[in-house]
Amino acid sequence: MSNLREEALNLHKEKKGKLGVCLKVPVRNAKDLSLAYSPGVAEPCLEIHNDDRKVYDYTMKGNLVAVVSNGTAVLGLGNIGPKAAMPVMEGKAALFKTFADVDAFPICLETKDSDKIVETVRLLEPTFGGVNLEDIAAPQCFEIEERLKKTCQIPIFHDDQHGTAIVTAAGLINALKLADKKIEEIRVVGNGAGAAGVAIVKLLHHMGVKDIILCDTKGIIYEGRPFGMNPIKEEIAKITNIEKKHGVLEDALKGADVFVGVSAAGAVTEEMVRSMNRDPIIFAMANPTPEIMPDRAKAAGALVVGTGRSDFPNQVNNVLAFPGIFRGALDVRAKEINEEMKLAAVFAIADLIGADDLHTDYVIPDPFDRRVAAHVAVAVANAAMETGVSQKNIDVAEIKKHLLALVEEKQNVFV
Amino acid sequence: MSNLREEALNLHKEKKGKLGVCLKVPVRNAKDLSLAYSPGVAEPCLEIHNDDRKVYDYTMKGNLVAVVSNGTAVLGLGNIGPKAAMPVMEGKAALFKTFADVDAFPICLETKDSDKIVETVRLLEPTFGGVNLEDIAAPQCFEIEERLKKTCQIPIFHDDQHGTAIVTAAGLINALKLADKKIEEIRVVGNGAGAAGVAIVKLLHHMGVKDIILCDTKGIIYEGRPFGMNPIKEEIAKITNIEKKHGVLEDALKGADVFVGVSAAGAVTEEMVRSMNRDPIIFAMANPTPEIMPDRAKAAGALVVGTGRSDFPNQVNNVLAFPGIFRGALDVRAKEINEEMKLAAVFAIADLIGADDLHTDYVIPDPFDRRVAAHVAVAVANAAMETGVSQKNIDVAEIKKHLLALVEEKQNVFV
Repeated sequence: MSNLREEALNLHKEKKGKLGVCLKVPVRNAKDLSLAYSPGVAEPCLEIHNDDRKVYDYTMKGNLVAVVSNGTAVLGLGNIGPKAAMPVMEGKAALFKTFADVDAFPICLETKDSDKIVETVRLLEPTFGGVNLEDIAAPQCFEIEERLKKTCQIPIFHDDQHGTAIVTAAGLINALKLADKKIEEIRVVGNGAGAAGVAIVKLLHHMGVKDIILCDTKGIIYEGRPFGMNPIKEEIAKITNIEKKHGVLEDALKGADVFVGVSAAGAVTEEMVRSMNRDPIIFAMANPTPEIMPDRAKAAGALVVGTGRSDFPNQVNNVLAFPGIFRGALDVRAKEINEEMKLAAVFAIADLIGADDLHTDYVIPDPFDRRVAAHVAVAVANAAMETGVSQKNIDVAEIKKHLLALVEEKQNVFV
Repeated sequence: MSNLREEALNLHKEKKGKLGVCLKVPVRNAKDLSLAYSPGVAEPCLEIHNDDRKVYDYTMKGNLVAVVSNGTAVLGLGNIGPKAAMPVMEGKAALFKTFADVDAFPICLETKDSDKIVETVRLLEPTFGGVNLEDIAAPQCFEIEERLKKTCQIPIFHDDQHGTAIVTAAGLINALKLADKKIEEIRVVGNGAGAAGVAIVKLLHHMGVKDIILCDTKGIIYEGRPFGMNPIKEEIAKITNIEKKHGVLEDALKGADVFVGVSAAGAVTEEMVRSMNRDPIIFAMANPTPEIMPDRAKAAGALVVGTGRSDFPNQVNNVLAFPGIFRGALDVRAKEINEEMKLAAVFAIADLIGADDLHTDYVIPDPFDRRVAAHVAVAVANAAMETGVSQKNIDVAEIKKHLLALVEEKQNVFV
């Protein structure tokens, strides 16, 4: 048994999981009980019954995010089911708590039926202040998120899509500064049309990238391709591939400025990197082994290389995005996480690296840079207020204070 | 604003609710992250994928109870809905944690449809180790519990039914010792055919009470009564009212030994108590005002009076039952909470009061008697193992040690 394996199993076994439920108020005696439970508890119940917005004042809802999965696309493990997905969802919740003091809770569902997932989350809406969809297989994940966004009055966010897209976009913005290229003028080639690949394409398109080609295992995606399509790929085909190219990844990459891989180990060769435009930017995010290893990409002329791994520079780690995004959204009681809020997160992450610090091995902040969540939360809260999806105006300085205190007293998040 | 009202609202508002999610393992640095999250987390995921019973070893599931409600019958407040029910469910979860170190979590559902509640809980089963149904209106609650017990492999327990029944039965056992009456020979009259009333009748019947009459707002329930019946009342009618009486509560009480009220203030008069057999035992549990006040019942000759209130002796408080019951059931990984386990809880609670201590004002232990949960848990765990519904054999001494440590280090349950 390898060291990591043994350590990870021991960590999970020692206390049976990673999360617990804790009390924020004491129940020591009859007096405490009479306030926290019967008869005193009737008072906040009646307040909420008279004005249901007060559920945010008197309950945990406003700081509570459901981490919802059915275990059909867990990490690189695939469809391992809802029970086996539990450790990941507990881990995700642990990150929410650690980085942004968000109470997040695993909700692992025994179903692969989109209708049932949508209905269950809808029924759970009174309890939670937000929903983080996690590790639900594509293309179902797209439909589920869209339907929930329409039906729910709380933020719905599929992190595998948008978290990855936001951090990648932040890295790209900084990499383009180093390459001295304008976002409107670049060609981006993506590989992998799952949750993350699709979301990256959509976000970059929204940010002004005009020339994007997305490939999947069958090659370049184009409108009306007679094989391996689905509704989301048809949608993507409409906003990408302006030259209506056919072919494979190798064809797409010739002359491209940026490669964004969320596909499989070894998908990109040194030759393919050499065929790109000057100063290629490579995000090779296949896990655990990137589409091309950073040293080989660099040897072939890549200016910047990012991966999903913590042992290489420029790690595209969603933890840079989701804690701050939900912190900001919850604090202003946003009804949704809209495109402007996502863009605000992109620039907040990118801007954390000043011109003096920026270099090819540092286009993305470190996941443990504790400024990140606060910066992202403030930007997202402001964007929500500016775009009218917030239900509460706040002084964003309070967010920084809150998260700074968290960093300083971080032992408090441990039981 | 009364003092209780103000204090209760402040308590709930100060930290926005009463519960939080806490980490049991640290996430301080990249090493911690690599064990608690990617890539290390894949190891427990794979272990569980290969043998799904290991979800109990590596996740929080085995100590996690969903407190499920739709807010249709909350305390004495009635149908206030799932959001307004949140403070009660958080409070319930706080009691689970305080008294038995069970991680319990509110699940408030936006539906009144039995099918949807059953389906939602079924889908949530991978996440939770048990389900406490709470404040769901009768008669729906009976059907929902029955269906869930059939479909789920984890304990399902409707506390409004069984918690109240178990504590009442424990008090009755002790009261009968003082009255020197045998349980087989008494006549019990119940008033109120909601969740608690029905469960009390069923439990007492199971315990050997042969002569029971249940009344509702329309009077004595009898087989084929042409008004105000439902399937559960028809079922109750078959096992009660052996003399096939018709009439009202007043008629039923004549010559009865025990009154059990889960109905409404003022339902019982002094005259009615006087009409009962010698040494009447009165459980007047209407909240907040009992069916008859203890002093009046005593004046009319009652030997023992119990109520739902903390300001009178013999408080029938469910907190004496549900924390220990779930602690015991979870620790042996019981597939269900069966009748034998409920009976074990009854006798564990009753037996805590020794012959020397037993008197008319002390037939039920104090809710803050910290021996109770441990005693109940041990009895329930033993009963589960003896009846073959446990999936794990344990040394019950460990339970006592666990809960004793909880009492001694109780500051640890507070964030």
